Amino acid sequence: MDANEFRRHGHELVDWIAEYLDGGVRGHAVRARVAPGEVRSQLPPEPPARGEPFSRVMADFERVLLPGVTHWQHPRFFAYFPANNSYPSVLGELLSAGLGVQGMLWETGPAATELEEVVMGWLRRMLGLPAEFQGVIQDTASTAALAALLCARERATHGRFNTEGAAAPQADRLVVYVSPETHSSIEKGARIAGFGRERVRKVPVGAAYALDPVALEATVAADLAAGLVPACCVGTCGTTGSTALDPLRAIGETCRRHGMWFHVDAALAGAAAILSEKRHILDGVELADSFVFNPHKWMFTNFDCSAFFVRDPDFLVKVLSINPEYLRTAHDGGVSNFRDWHVQLGRRFRALKLWFVIRTFGVEGIRARLREHLAWAQEFRSWVEADPDWELLAPVPLNLICFRWAPLSADPRALDALNERLLRAVNDGGQLYLSHTRLGGDYALRLCVGQTTQTRDDVAAAWRILGETARAIARPA
Amino acid sequence: MDANEFRRHGHELVDWIAEYLDGGVRGHAVRARVAPGEVRSQLPPEPPARGEPFSRVMADFERVLLPGVTHWQHPRFFAYFPANNSYPSVLGELLSAGLGVQGMLWETGPAATELEEVVMGWLRRMLGLPAEFQGVIQDTASTAALAALLCARERATHGRFNTEGAAAPQADRLVVYVSPETHSSIEKGARIAGFGRERVRKVPVGAAYALDPVALEATVAADLAAGLVPACCVGTCGTTGSTALDPLRAIGETCRRHGMWFHVDAALAGAAAILSEKRHILDGVELADSFVFNPHKWMFTNFDCSAFFVRDPDFLVKVLSINPEYLRTAHDGGVSNFRDWHVQLGRRFRALKLWFVIRTFGVEGIRARLREHLAWAQEFRSWVEADPDWELLAPVPLNLICFRWAPLSADPRALDALNERLLRAVNDGGQLYLSHTRLGGDYALRLCVGQTTQTRDDVAAAWRILGETARAIARPA
Repeated sequence: MDANEFRRHGHELVDWIAEYLDGGVRGHAVRARVAPGEVRSQLPPEPPARGEPFSRVMADFERVLLPGVTHWQHPRFFAYFPANNSYPSVLGELLSAGLGVQGMLWETGPAATELEEVVMGWLRRMLGLPAEFQGVIQDTASTAALAALLCARERATHGRFNTEGAAAPQADRLVVYVSPETHSSIEKGARIAGFGRERVRKVPVGAAYALDPVALEATVAADLAAGLVPACCVGTCGTTGSTALDPLRAIGETCRRHGMWFHVDAALAGAAAILSEKRHILDGVELADSFVFNPHKWMFTNFDCSAFFVRDPDFLVKVLSINPEYLRTAHDGGVSNFRDWHVQLGRRFRALKLWFVIRTFGVEGIRARLREHLAWAQEFRSWVEADPDWELLAPVPLNLICFRWAPLSADPRALDALNERLLRAVNDGGQLYLSHTRLGGDYALRLCVGQTTQTRDDVAAAWRILGETARAIARPA
Repeated sequence: MDANEFRRHGHELVDWIAEYLDGGVRGHAVRARVAPGEVRSQLPPEPPARGEPFSRVMADFERVLLPGVTHWQHPRFFAYFPANNSYPSVLGELLSAGLGVQGMLWETGPAATELEEVVMGWLRRMLGLPAEFQGVIQDTASTAALAALLCARERATHGRFNTEGAAAPQADRLVVYVSPETHSSIEKGARIAGFGRERVRKVPVGAAYALDPVALEATVAADLAAGLVPACCVGTCGTTGSTALDPLRAIGETCRRHGMWFHVDAALAGAAAILSEKRHILDGVELADSFVFNPHKWMFTNFDCSAFFVRDPDFLVKVLSINPEYLRTAHDGGVSNFRDWHVQLGRRFRALKLWFVIRTFGVEGIRARLREHLAWAQEFRSWVEADPDWELLAPVPLNLICFRWAPLSADPRALDALNERLLRAVNDGGQLYLSHTRLGGDYALRLCVGQTTQTRDDVAAAWRILGETARAIARPA
């Protein structure tokens, strides 16, 4: 492909994406309807020996791949948490790909490094995070959590786990505290970092699925009495199950009291703190040692873009720094070499898309959209609450509604199966895509408002389609 | 930004990239010439309250950021290892961004998952890897190495490090074997995974900077005698310092003998194995438990795209799998949920760019370019060897030349400083960008051939400019 072909196909692709995002996506079932192996079976197991025209590749994309795409950018995607893109963000990815900068060191990407410092500063201000927090873009909140856990591990072992491994004093006695509603990535990170799965304590939650700080204090006390070393507690602002809000201040105070690393996971909900009226969800964050939220969820920035903040970057760098001769530059010491802030060495120019998004939306533009999403979520909640055949299963502090179909006529023991059936029918129908979880043992439908191009009509349609599908299931065959 | 504005700015950006990659980049100094803080100081510390027109953002990009870009796609970028893009790869990133698929589960991206299975199969065939190797795209070879180290850790502790952490039997006795030339990411991964830095043994290298397998066997024997547990050895196909080729077969046999996990790091050089005449560099890879190479280095595929292969994916999945209720789907067990194959949970549709590259280049097209790069590297080597003022510092099995300026008149003790000065002058000049390393204690210039749009003229120009710059330095002031 030469420059002219790139121009031509690039323009076609931009037009294809514009058409797709500007309504074209609505022509597709939200969740792909293919069976396992269906896409694979249509593709040759051998690579082509000769180059083929791009038009043929795009034709195969449309014919073979597109039916196998689950449309995360469909306005009726309500599953999981959103992974939003937006026009300026797509342009940011495009420019980043075109430049092909690999900013592992300041010297290999001064603009990438310094723009990242600037936009992370913007995010810090937008969320009202402590001025001393320093930010770095990670790929995902999972990787960021791993970084936090590594810091915790080293603080608890005075840097000796890093050097001596499991043989370090106290290495075999470290404990991480979460709740049963904490994201699974924390356990995954604790396993990776060598804490061990059994040393991840699940402190009970209270009525609203938020971690119980009294139980935390008691669990920590029992562990201390048993000779264990409390190393880290993760507080979640907006759990994946139900956007529950852990009491960050109380958790933070317990962490301070016992010298534990306090990591705050606000992967989805952090975005809401951009709103002054929601800023309270981060109350107590000033006690945190590290904090993460994902602009790639609910801030219109393509996956991946996770914003990780840490109070003391020296700690992070000490754990993750490597300094072989071939990576040394004249500027080391005076600049940020972000390679030392995460697991990877190489890094893309991800600050660009974030910069494009914030500048073209403006903070007020982002706020306006978030406020719409929050309002529509509350409307949906009110519809659930007002209908005797439906039941709300958790508070709705933000944009996620956890609920179930609970027709008065149904045997309460049958509700799990009934809702599983309803979810399958709704998702198979292709008009909506929702996901599920379990709350207090009950099977719960999860509907998350917040896709970039979603409208109030889409939220209303979701409610209508859920009702119609439920009634169709209820109707005697 | 609405769809029409996206179309307009998207077309402009495609044209900008075409112009940039098709020679425009030659108008820039290869390495950015800004001072630390220079980019940052031109950007406001506060985010904009109101959205701004995209044209203003692009104007700032050109005015403020572009001077701070180190141009990895410049044909005279010879530093580090390349991080190549290409026109079809940029289009792949664009389409991936537009679709915004997050393929953590098969269900959330059937096409993303199955296309990845297909293109990883293509790569396996292209490199002649064992048929039983199964592949997954990771972001970087560092993350892939961490995955391999976690597998090694668990195999050595019978899965108990994962559950019990440092308290697991033998957890405090695990050893990882590398050479002083092994990439620093292995030590970083070993620190993350809890082996401890001190348990990373640097087995000596032989004359060509390749790991000495006799020394490996002796080191392992000594550790066994001391009651330690050899868990992993990393063999490198093409070290970062000098593309040295570790004797994979001999290392693999030692690994088999002692039940160690054998990870092969071919981050750069794996691409060369696509050529039948270079296939021998992977001799012995069939003994490996895991293998990684980076299409994002020397295979024209945008960073990040690292191809990780593992013989027994069950092992990997057991270590990295998490299965909370909110991620369960009806297809679990019958499909690949790639979230369980790496540190992250979320994942982009990266197979798309790899598919675009392989289909539009064709395997022969990729081979033709690699052969050119290899030939030009040998030419450059011959120029160094033929000139009495220059010295080759390592064999050139592939596309990297390690050399230094060693004028007959110079004090041998002054050569390090002289070459440091030369490198600074060359890089400051803006016409070339090279990096350095140390080999056998000596400061070595590294020139890596292989940038996508590089020509023989660029390689010849590098030699000419190095000579001119050296002569200018040598000339009495």
